[in-house]
Amino acid sequence: MVIGSGSWGSVAAKLVAFNTLNLSSFHDEVKMWVFEETLQSGEKLTDAINRTNENVKYLPGIKLGKNVIADPDLDNAVEDANMLVFVTPHQFIDNICKSLVGKVRSDAEAISLIKGMEVKIEGPCLISTYISEQLGINCSVLMGANLANEIAEEKFSEATVGYRNNREIAEQWVQLFTTPYFMVTPVQDVEGVELCGTLKNVVAIAAGFVDGLDMGNNTKAAIIRFGLREMREFCKLLFSSVKDDTFFESCGVADVITTCFGGRNRKVAEAFARNGGKRSFDELEAEMLQGQKLQGVTTVREVYEVLRHRGLLELFPLFATVHEICSGCLPPSAIVIYSEKKNIFPV
Amino acid sequence: MVIGSGSWGSVAAKLVAFNTLNLSSFHDEVKMWVFEETLQSGEKLTDAINRTNENVKYLPGIKLGKNVIADPDLDNAVEDANMLVFVTPHQFIDNICKSLVGKVRSDAEAISLIKGMEVKIEGPCLISTYISEQLGINCSVLMGANLANEIAEEKFSEATVGYRNNREIAEQWVQLFTTPYFMVTPVQDVEGVELCGTLKNVVAIAAGFVDGLDMGNNTKAAIIRFGLREMREFCKLLFSSVKDDTFFESCGVADVITTCFGGRNRKVAEAFARNGGKRSFDELEAEMLQGQKLQGVTTVREVYEVLRHRGLLELFPLFATVHEICSGCLPPSAIVIYSEKKNIFPV
Repeated sequence: MVIGSGSWGSVAAKLVAFNTLNLSSFHDEVKMWVFEETLQSGEKLTDAINRTNENVKYLPGIKLGKNVIADPDLDNAVEDANMLVFVTPHQFIDNICKSLVGKVRSDAEAISLIKGMEVKIEGPCLISTYISEQLGINCSVLMGANLANEIAEEKFSEATVGYRNNREIAEQWVQLFTTPYFMVTPVQDVEGVELCGTLKNVVAIAAGFVDGLDMGNNTKAAIIRFGLREMREFCKLLFSSVKDDTFFESCGVADVITTCFGGRNRKVAEAFARNGGKRSFDELEAEMLQGQKLQGVTTVREVYEVLRHRGLLELFPLFATVHEICSGCLPPSAIVIYSEKKNIFPV
Repeated sequence: MVIGSGSWGSVAAKLVAFNTLNLSSFHDEVKMWVFEETLQSGEKLTDAINRTNENVKYLPGIKLGKNVIADPDLDNAVEDANMLVFVTPHQFIDNICKSLVGKVRSDAEAISLIKGMEVKIEGPCLISTYISEQLGINCSVLMGANLANEIAEEKFSEATVGYRNNREIAEQWVQLFTTPYFMVTPVQDVEGVELCGTLKNVVAIAAGFVDGLDMGNNTKAAIIRFGLREMREFCKLLFSSVKDDTFFESCGVADVITTCFGGRNRKVAEAFARNGGKRSFDELEAEMLQGQKLQGVTTVREVYEVLRHRGLLELFPLFATVHEICSGCLPPSAIVIYSEKKNIFPV
C-alpha cells in the first residue's frame, strides 16, 4: 500500500499498480491512503479518485490503474498490508508513524520515498530510521532523478533503491517499481542513498547562485562537482559505511544534475543572487513559493552546525560558503572564491 | 612554451604567462608557436599578436600578457624550452611531433591539452603517449570543463592534470596553470584523464538525442549518468590502472555536464533526433559545422569496434545504442530503451 497521495505518491501508486497486476507474486490491489479533502464540486477527493481512477487534484489527466483504491482511513489502509510505501511530505511523517504504532504487521516491509531528513548535531535523523524505529519494521529507501510529472507521462526515468541487509527484499522493491520506462537499481547503502536526496538541495542553491551571477557553464559544472564531492565526504563523515559508488547512481549524480538545472531551490537562489543578496531568502520564498520553505536553506544551516561543531568547516568550503551566503554573511559572488581553499579532499 | 594558438591555445598562453611573471621559479617569457597566416589587413598574424598583445583572429579582445611572444618558427620556438604545452587541433599533432624529433631538450616536460585520441582495436592511441614516444620525453595531460571563451573572461573554472609517476612535475604544471579564477587538481591517472576528454563527446551525442526527443530532465540525467558510468568502465577495460575517483574530477563529471548542456556534439545530435534520423550526421555536420566533423560520431564508431571485437557490446548498452543510432541502424528513440538491458555493471 501507498501512504501519501501528492503527485509523487500518485505516480508511485501507478508504478506499483502496474506491477501488482502483472506479477503473480503480489496481490493485485494497491491501497493508497489519501489525506481527505472536499473538492470544490463538493465531492470527497477519495471518491473522485475511485470514480475516475485519477488523482484529480494532484495528478490530473493520469490514469493510476483500476487496482488503485483510495482510502481516507489510515488504520484501515494499512491493515494486512505487507509492503508499505511512505511518500508523504516530510513534515507529516511524525504524526503518521505515531498513529500507526502497533497497527502494522510485524513482518511488514517499508520503503521511504520521502526527501528531507534533519541533520542534527548528534547525527542526522534519517526518515527511514525513524519509520523503522517507530514501527519496529525494516525500512528501505527509493531516491533518484524523479520529477513526478515526467514519470507520470511515462518518459524514461530511473531511481535507486537503498537497502540495509536483505538483498531479497531489495529485489522485491525493484520488481514492484520497475516498468519499461522506470528503471530501478538496488544499492546496499540506505544512508548514502537517503542523504543524497536531502544534500542535493544545498548543491542546487550553489548552482542557482552561479546562474544568478551569469558565470557560465564552466563555473556551474565546477560548482556542481564540488557539491557532489562534498555530499560524498559529508555522508562518509556521518556514516563510515557509505559507498563512493552510491554517488554514481541515480540518487547521486543524476539527481544532482536535474536539481541543479530545474527545481525551486535553484530558482530562488538565482533570484537571490540577481538581487545581490539584498532581498532575504525568507522574502523571496514568500513571494515565489506561496508560503513553502526551501529545504536547501534549512539543510545547509543544519549541515553547517554539524561541521562547525566538529571543527571541519574548512574541509567543506562549498557547503560553508552556501550557508554564509544564505545567512547574509557573504555576498553571492563568494560562491566562486576558492583560490584560498583549494585542497578539497586531496587524493 | 605553448604549441598552438587557437582560442584554447591563446587562453593557455594567458594563464601560463600570468604565472611565469609572478613566480620566480619560471622564466618570464612564454613563446607561443603560431601557424602563420596573413590577415585581411595584410599583416602577419604573429606580428599582429606581438604588436597588440591579443590573438586578434582567434581570441580578440583578450590581452594575453606582455610576456607572450608569438613565433611562426616551430624549431626556433622550442629551442631551449623546458616545458612544452601542446594545444593544437588533434589532426596536426602528427606532423608537429615528426618535425620536432631531435630538436627538443632531453629533459623537457610536455603536457597535452588536446582532446580527441583514436581508439583502435589494438588499443587506444593516446596523444600523450604519442608525444612521449615521438619526442622521448614525459607527457602529462590537462583536461576539464574548459570552454575557452569563459576562461578568457576570467570566469571561475577548473581543470584536472593527469600525470604518470612524478608528483613534483604535476605540481609544477599545477603552479603554471593555476590562477585565482582557474583551479587545477592533479590526479595520478594520465589515461583516465585523457580518455575522459574524448569519451564525453559520445555521452553528449546521447544527451542531444534526448533533447531532440523532448524527453525531459529525468531522462537526460539518467542518460548522462549511464554515459559517465560506461566511460568509467570502458577506461578501466583499456587500462586497469584507471581510478574511479578520476570521474569525480573536473575532467569527468564536470566536463560531461558542460558538454551535455552546451557544445556542438549535443547540438547536432539534437537536430538529428528532431529529424527522426532521416537526415544523416554527414549532412547535418556539413550544414551546421562548416565542414568540421563531430568527434563524438567518430569516437563512438571506434569504441563500438573495440567492444564488438572483445564481445562486450552488451555491457555497454549506451555506447552501443549511440553508434547504432548514428549509423542509422536504430531510430533516435532507441536511446531510452533499457528495459531489456538493465544490468549495467552490477555492484
